Amino acid sequence: MHETLAEIGEKEILNRLRCFMPLGQIDDDTAEIKTNKNKLLINTDVLVEDVHFSKETTSPEDVGWKAVTTNFSDLASSGTEKILGITVGLVVPPDTSWEWVKRLYQGIDKALKQFGGELLGGDCSKGQQKLIAITAIGTLGPLRLHRSNALPGDHLVTSGPHGLSRLGLALLVSDPILQSEFLDDTLQKLAIKTHQQPIAPLAALRALEKCKPKDTPWRAAGTDSSDGLLIAIENICLSSGCQAVLSLSSMPRSQDWPQGSHWDEWCLNGGEDYELVISLPPEWAKAFRETWPTSKTIGTIRSGPPKTIWETGKEVKILPCSGFKHF
Amino acid sequence: MHETLAEIGEKEILNRLRCFMPLGQIDDDTAEIKTNKNKLLINTDVLVEDVHFSKETTSPEDVGWKAVTTNFSDLASSGTEKILGITVGLVVPPDTSWEWVKRLYQGIDKALKQFGGELLGGDCSKGQQKLIAITAIGTLGPLRLHRSNALPGDHLVTSGPHGLSRLGLALLVSDPILQSEFLDDTLQKLAIKTHQQPIAPLAALRALEKCKPKDTPWRAAGTDSSDGLLIAIENICLSSGCQAVLSLSSMPRSQDWPQGSHWDEWCLNGGEDYELVISLPPEWAKAFRETWPTSKTIGTIRSGPPKTIWETGKEVKILPCSGFKHF
Repeated sequence: MHETLAEIGEKEILNRLRCFMPLGQIDDDTAEIKTNKNKLLINTDVLVEDVHFSKETTSPEDVGWKAVTTNFSDLASSGTEKILGITVGLVVPPDTSWEWVKRLYQGIDKALKQFGGELLGGDCSKGQQKLIAITAIGTLGPLRLHRSNALPGDHLVTSGPHGLSRLGLALLVSDPILQSEFLDDTLQKLAIKTHQQPIAPLAALRALEKCKPKDTPWRAAGTDSSDGLLIAIENICLSSGCQAVLSLSSMPRSQDWPQGSHWDEWCLNGGEDYELVISLPPEWAKAFRETWPTSKTIGTIRSGPPKTIWETGKEVKILPCSGFKHF
Repeated sequence: MHETLAEIGEKEILNRLRCFMPLGQIDDDTAEIKTNKNKLLINTDVLVEDVHFSKETTSPEDVGWKAVTTNFSDLASSGTEKILGITVGLVVPPDTSWEWVKRLYQGIDKALKQFGGELLGGDCSKGQQKLIAITAIGTLGPLRLHRSNALPGDHLVTSGPHGLSRLGLALLVSDPILQSEFLDDTLQKLAIKTHQQPIAPLAALRALEKCKPKDTPWRAAGTDSSDGLLIAIENICLSSGCQAVLSLSSMPRSQDWPQGSHWDEWCLNGGEDYELVISLPPEWAKAFRETWPTSKTIGTIRSGPPKTIWETGKEVKILPCSGFKHF
């Protein structure tokens, strides 16, 4: 009789939740807390075992690390200057070993030491399935990134290569698709590292802010590519009401990334990349490329009904992120 | 080989997590976020289906309401002046109806309208079991309540009666223990209401702050009685290194509360009461009793190794909270 969440799907769920949220908030990676003294950004991410991680591919330390960095990635892609801290909501079956919990917190601790912020308490309960809900909070810097800030004429840049995390996962589960491929050893190691211990793009954000040309205003659209590069671009186009024109020759492939259609597909839709995807004035994009070595201009923004096309005019197909589905 | 969480128990889990937290934090209901401009309090609570609520006794609206108020109760008992907002981490099985989710958010919305604060986004994922992780954030008022602030000579007061929520649960599940009892109708309704839609003691905190005698310093120990009245008192004694002396004749029973040992037991150990439990100078306790009609002085604080005793000298038995166990 009643529709289930599986039936209506993630997009429609978010759409229906709009009425409970302050205006515009559902279109951004984080929410803003307005105190009368300063502006803070806050974000919550939930990682569920067998949905977002599995014991086969992710150690408890890496679950802790990833739970922190996925959160910090959202904060970075909204303009966070300084991480203040996190709270941890942990649910685990009662037969979970203390060893597992300790290693999880060691991973959390390691990530906090690298990116900043304190552990600000939390809660812990038994449940059927392991899961970790982290809320992170930070102060807003000079550049408030919204998905809705893109303007025609902007360049579309990303802070780093895409597809590495998806390749890392394939390597970890010995995906048969890799059997016939020769893969550079360095690329393999980097891919596994990127999958297991991704980096939150806080340093990339700082570099972006630092290189802004003097006369260019503090205006840019941004999100992160945690759900895949194309989804990130689509979200910017939808929120800003514009089109993205991508160049096939400028795809943000990693060094020694093989040729072939599934390799392009992993680059575009692989997910869990945690790079900034930014739409900004051309002169600022140029300055960022010069200052941040892994950054790349991947296309341009033009007016028109929201869609993403190749420069040949062909529409870009967005596939559901191959990593996981929330519903 | 490895100890499980069920084996080591909740207290020891918390104890072992100390090394990951800033000093003293694990002894308080909330954590403090220090920005260079203002002080904020933050708290995360996780409610898991079949651990903290069940569909038999709690509607989705009430799950939403309770998830918010349990959190706000922690904020109140640490000294929160104004609620800024909450984030919601929601995990539900994919066959959950949209109707359930909508009603949950309606309950959240209703609580926010009553107590203040905005919905600041969140995250949603599929999982085996329904659960909701809420993080709430507020600004600190003039009185920072710590569990460790009690001093010998203090009076121990609570903002309201205890045991009502436990009675409400018993009524909702038609507990056989109630068969032979005659219960006043008003008491029954109040008990069910208290169980399903508890009130966060934010107004009680404001009244407490307002009635402070001019020459009395801003110093009081506090916590809430979410895990039971005696646990709250024990936590204050442990953190402050002192003893509580309770008066049997001053137990915070509700009006028309029946006589009998299991009624006392529900009052002392029932849990989910969400009242303030405060240790403070006698003159301030007196002023609070005069200003807040449901408040009561339940005992005094004296020096000595942490324990809770009756004024007869007999040690008070703290039973595990009858409502639920985290592990």
